[in-house]
Amino acid sequence: MKRLIYADNAATTQLDRDAFEAMQPFLLNEYGNASQPYAFARTAKKALREARETIAECIGAVPEEIFFTSGGTESDNWAIKGSAFFDTEKRETITSQIEHHAVLHACEDIERMGYPVTYLPADSCGTVHAEELSERITSNTRLVSIMTANNEIGTIQDISSLARVSHNAGAVFHTDAVQALGHIKIDANSLGVDMLSASAHKFNGPKGIGFLYIKKGTPIRSFISGGSQEHGMRAGTENVASVVGMAAALQKNTLMQAETSSYMYSLEERLLGILHSGNLNFIRNGDEKHLPGNISLSFYGRDGEAILHRLDLMGICVSTGSACDSQNTRISHVLHAIGLDEKYAKGTIRISLSRANTTEDVDIIADSLLKILR
Amino acid sequence: MKRLIYADNAATTQLDRDAFEAMQPFLLNEYGNASQPYAFARTAKKALREARETIAECIGAVPEEIFFTSGGTESDNWAIKGSAFFDTEKRETITSQIEHHAVLHACEDIERMGYPVTYLPADSCGTVHAEELSERITSNTRLVSIMTANNEIGTIQDISSLARVSHNAGAVFHTDAVQALGHIKIDANSLGVDMLSASAHKFNGPKGIGFLYIKKGTPIRSFISGGSQEHGMRAGTENVASVVGMAAALQKNTLMQAETSSYMYSLEERLLGILHSGNLNFIRNGDEKHLPGNISLSFYGRDGEAILHRLDLMGICVSTGSACDSQNTRISHVLHAIGLDEKYAKGTIRISLSRANTTEDVDIIADSLLKILR
Repeated sequence: MKRLIYADNAATTQLDRDAFEAMQPFLLNEYGNASQPYAFARTAKKALREARETIAECIGAVPEEIFFTSGGTESDNWAIKGSAFFDTEKRETITSQIEHHAVLHACEDIERMGYPVTYLPADSCGTVHAEELSERITSNTRLVSIMTANNEIGTIQDISSLARVSHNAGAVFHTDAVQALGHIKIDANSLGVDMLSASAHKFNGPKGIGFLYIKKGTPIRSFISGGSQEHGMRAGTENVASVVGMAAALQKNTLMQAETSSYMYSLEERLLGILHSGNLNFIRNGDEKHLPGNISLSFYGRDGEAILHRLDLMGICVSTGSACDSQNTRISHVLHAIGLDEKYAKGTIRISLSRANTTEDVDIIADSLLKILR
Repeated sequence: MKRLIYADNAATTQLDRDAFEAMQPFLLNEYGNASQPYAFARTAKKALREARETIAECIGAVPEEIFFTSGGTESDNWAIKGSAFFDTEKRETITSQIEHHAVLHACEDIERMGYPVTYLPADSCGTVHAEELSERITSNTRLVSIMTANNEIGTIQDISSLARVSHNAGAVFHTDAVQALGHIKIDANSLGVDMLSASAHKFNGPKGIGFLYIKKGTPIRSFISGGSQEHGMRAGTENVASVVGMAAALQKNTLMQAETSSYMYSLEERLLGILHSGNLNFIRNGDEKHLPGNISLSFYGRDGEAILHRLDLMGICVSTGSACDSQNTRISHVLHAIGLDEKYAKGTIRISLSRANTTEDVDIIADSLLKILR
């Protein structure tokens, strides 16, 4: 069998081997319910506490501000709906047109229930401008939710400025950091955000686990109610193994972040260098300030899906639109929002690299693209 | 170290070894995002499909009626809130006083939002009567939610009758089967329920995964919105490993169910026989129709928490109230609802056995209780 070249790390990543090893005891012998008072539950309880501390440390928070969820999508839904349902005085939410569907569809849910939502535009690089937010925000704005970095094109937002504008208007600020966390430096405190969503499988942790950072004092209701887990804010028997795996993966990615990102930028340069030598008519989407290794390419007059399938036959995994929308072959809402010419938009693929990729991988990807497109 | 006697299987169970083995490939090498179209995601996609088929078969459903969630609590919240938010004409929900907090607190959430909820009483055995439902249900009732079996005292409800009364009044019927599934025979179709909640870690599957059965045509909104996973009804990257583990565990428990339950009832008899020989003043709570191995005992004038701690020192794990409420030392809402005398209620422990328990375990538990209480 041909060697697999996995270059779809923005869709999901491989679980880190150390994270898996850290999970194993809690999948096997240490199965006690972490909320129970007996000695047998102590190891699970301690692991949960330590994981919370590790994660808090990685993002510049305190442990009481970390609430475990089933992943980024739940975290986003919680932030948006939990805010809407808390405060019936200030009813408006502001978000952007280029958010992940987890934010956009959660916003549509609350719109249907009578809470107005404003969708800010992005510029051609995918940047949402603080000035634009400034103009639109009112004293009726309860929540502003802007993603840290875009999953499709990698553009990193100026979160500090957006949060500042929100706070000046008396609104709460949430950021969907699902695609960003573990890949760029994120300090919740110095960014000034009130809430931040994260998903473990985007940074070499397991699938089905994530967290919502909620700064102390942020007005929000619980979303999944029941038992008194997570300080009474997120019910359900604690998924200890996955939480432990998430913490191990985040810690490792955080420690390696600076090194990984320079390596990613060098791989990007290498890939683009080869492609540019091929006289292809293409655009790289996004901004100079982008997620390391996230390469959105639009080839003029081509079909992104066809490219994906040709690469697949060569043992290379990439994405067309976002992974969550791969069954949907229309132009993605993000490419639409940045105003990309349809002739380019239809020919878009996303290559997303990780530290597991080699220079040889990149050469093969680039050469294969040249073969397909020349 | 002393051998651990784990008798708190209603709080959580040990992950089945075969289920763990089934999960491993998806935690390690088969990490592809099941929603992606390339060949590398095919194994994950196939595993997901097969797991859905297995689970559907175990509960008498079709695969399209199984929606994976992060566990029982999410499933309950989804059923209750997703129904409330769907239909604004019929606004009332009916549930019972002895439901799990995942149902009760979800109901309080919708009450706060202006949807009325009626809480049916239970009799002294913990049975919720169809006649009672008949009297209270109106043409304004949208949803009736009654648990299949109670987590604290094990009482099994007459779900068919309750569902029939609900349907006759034009309401949707949901059952929280979290504590029951894998332990008693459950056929969603012949029970006549419209929705059914389940949690894997209650039947030797992994923590952090569950499902909601939704009969075709049931009016319900999605609860966690975003990507188009789970037929557009539950967004979030699929947790393939955990889904596979859940299916393996449920299949095994279902195959062994008849055998396991006779074994459980024989262990119960043995335990109660020894206790009765001890001249203790105690009541066994619940009904003759109860979950196999779920033994709620109330010792007159004693302190349940103190008993739990004494047993813990002897290496025996049991529970006081429900696991989800173990930090809460007041009398549980279930014991309150069945009208148990406070002198008994305060001295309540729940012993919950599994097929991993031996007759020797039971003898040690009973002898230890006699030592503590005599």
